Amino acid sequence: MLFAATVTFSHAQTPVYTSATELTLVGKIQATQQVYHRIDTTDYPDMPPAVKRLLTNSAGLAIAFKTNSTTVSAKWCTSPRTASANMTAIVYEGLDLYIKKDGRWQFAGVGMPNGDCSEYTLVRNMGEGEKECLLYLPLYDETTSLEIGVAEGATLQPLPDPFRKRILMYGSSILQGASASRPGIAYPARLSRDTGLNFLNLGLSGSAKMEKPVADMIASISADAFVLDCVPNSSPQEIKERTAYLVNTIRQHHPKAPILVIPSTVREHGAFDQVVGARVKAQNEQIEEEVNKLLRSGVKDLYLLSYRQQLGTDHEGTVDGTHPNDLGFDRMLQQLRPQFKAILRKYNIKVD
Amino acid sequence: MLFAATVTFSHAQTPVYTSATELTLVGKIQATQQVYHRIDTTDYPDMPPAVKRLLTNSAGLAIAFKTNSTTVSAKWCTSPRTASANMTAIVYEGLDLYIKKDGRWQFAGVGMPNGDCSEYTLVRNMGEGEKECLLYLPLYDETTSLEIGVAEGATLQPLPDPFRKRILMYGSSILQGASASRPGIAYPARLSRDTGLNFLNLGLSGSAKMEKPVADMIASISADAFVLDCVPNSSPQEIKERTAYLVNTIRQHHPKAPILVIPSTVREHGAFDQVVGARVKAQNEQIEEEVNKLLRSGVKDLYLLSYRQQLGTDHEGTVDGTHPNDLGFDRMLQQLRPQFKAILRKYNIKVD
Repeated sequence: MLFAATVTFSHAQTPVYTSATELTLVGKIQATQQVYHRIDTTDYPDMPPAVKRLLTNSAGLAIAFKTNSTTVSAKWCTSPRTASANMTAIVYEGLDLYIKKDGRWQFAGVGMPNGDCSEYTLVRNMGEGEKECLLYLPLYDETTSLEIGVAEGATLQPLPDPFRKRILMYGSSILQGASASRPGIAYPARLSRDTGLNFLNLGLSGSAKMEKPVADMIASISADAFVLDCVPNSSPQEIKERTAYLVNTIRQHHPKAPILVIPSTVREHGAFDQVVGARVKAQNEQIEEEVNKLLRSGVKDLYLLSYRQQLGTDHEGTVDGTHPNDLGFDRMLQQLRPQFKAILRKYNIKVD
Repeated sequence: MLFAATVTFSHAQTPVYTSATELTLVGKIQATQQVYHRIDTTDYPDMPPAVKRLLTNSAGLAIAFKTNSTTVSAKWCTSPRTASANMTAIVYEGLDLYIKKDGRWQFAGVGMPNGDCSEYTLVRNMGEGEKECLLYLPLYDETTSLEIGVAEGATLQPLPDPFRKRILMYGSSILQGASASRPGIAYPARLSRDTGLNFLNLGLSGSAKMEKPVADMIASISADAFVLDCVPNSSPQEIKERTAYLVNTIRQHHPKAPILVIPSTVREHGAFDQVVGARVKAQNEQIEEEVNKLLRSGVKDLYLLSYRQQLGTDHEGTVDGTHPNDLGFDRMLQQLRPQFKAILRKYNIKVD
């Protein structure tokens, strides 16, 4: 009995927690007062309220650390929001852990949320030895606190940022990560692990409409390249009126940075809903026209990517017609990844 | 103003609702008192309480109908449960609509739940003409009522069951549909649309442990073939003690029906959690031993399928290490579907 009790105690050992602020914060767009916000909106007072609220979401942020612990736990708090119907609570307000294995980042476990403050052991029973870890934060909620827990006596140290350069991605809910099943499957996160580059997530669910104050904010961000995936949220009229200002303002502040524009992905329910189908077609025709106009006007290093296979041919790549599921994201990346790689390499950006 | 008001009224037209019980119920395992339960558990009093509760979930049920309406709406109620962290509310307690297009079932829209009783327009703005529809019910909740809404004056009629034969599938949460993003992506549902056969969902999340009363219940079900995907929930010891009774009892009641056994899929966190990794290995070694023993004892028409590529090589195929996401399900079916088709064809079961 004594032995059994000892074993149980050993397994249920209380983790020793350290604030994640003492480790390495990856994917950060700009310094902020609240460490897990993406942008300090007080610096940009004219942006729309919806944009300001979304910039408090911790999408794209991750903590890099190394430990010799055989378990990794976390305690974290998020705002009182709960997941929307087309997302899991894990992707919305949970955590996602990757560990380096054979030179590659490999999924290791999730942090399942349970209310606004949660404690969870993401992985246990690991072998001895040091592990390099990357812990993705919630995509759709504000993370108000985060502590990493390891076994008593184990090491826990910051790991240098594993990603090079800065590729700023501005876009819609799809970029922010709806509807991946967990934070690490958001497509900027997958791109970072695939290429070794730091793809920064400025996904603004439903609110990527290229407003002038947002364009000014984007142009103020330090980056080596810019990706614009904002067509799904912008009406054809908005695309017509706003694309040139956004591209030209970025170009003015970043004379040499390539700008990559992604057309809207398919909306699968648009196969039956004729209004939706026609809108996506009009959006994509309009962005093509605007990009061509800019190229003719002499803007250099501007690219419109293509999306020929959409999310596959079986129409199973979305959760709700609009937002890719993990299958749709995988098919999307099969098309976009080679285009990203080829263009970035032209600018002496080393791509894995 | 009057014109605008008229247009608004026309778009917001109240649907005319009909109880789904007047249409065709697809995927039904046995007749039940509550129409959206899978089995009347009062007929099998000795089954474990968890199994009884899960049999009230509407997993695998769908409504087949035809309509010339340009919109399809639904009103439905489920139990007070809410989605677990590794599932969307859509898959847990929402609806999923497919419409026949060019001879194939194609995703058309979802019913987003909003509390215990919801009303939602799944698709609108469709063209004129008759559509054949298949509406999947919630996978993880009890559906207590369901009405289908069409535009005033539109037709709404039962559609003959589009699927042939009856393939009874008994298994774990993965079979029940965790963690597909919506009900129509559960793997038995995908198999039905792919093959034209009626794969019946007897997924019992966490509770597919081959208990004797459950084995007796399964053997009592009318079916042309049986698929057993219960290894993930059963300990190696349970597999050793219970597999023979389950298989022999089915064989006794169904002398000629093929029995297909699926080994456990990978648990991706088992790459790091050595206990989990060892358990899956032991489960799969045990089921192989039991199937081989049964074959040696003279049981005919018994098959152990294989799962060589698991959920892919990038380890991104699960939401939480255990439950496939839509990417994992797709990879799983790429391996299992040809095996299902080849075996079923041997038994003169016509497969699309």
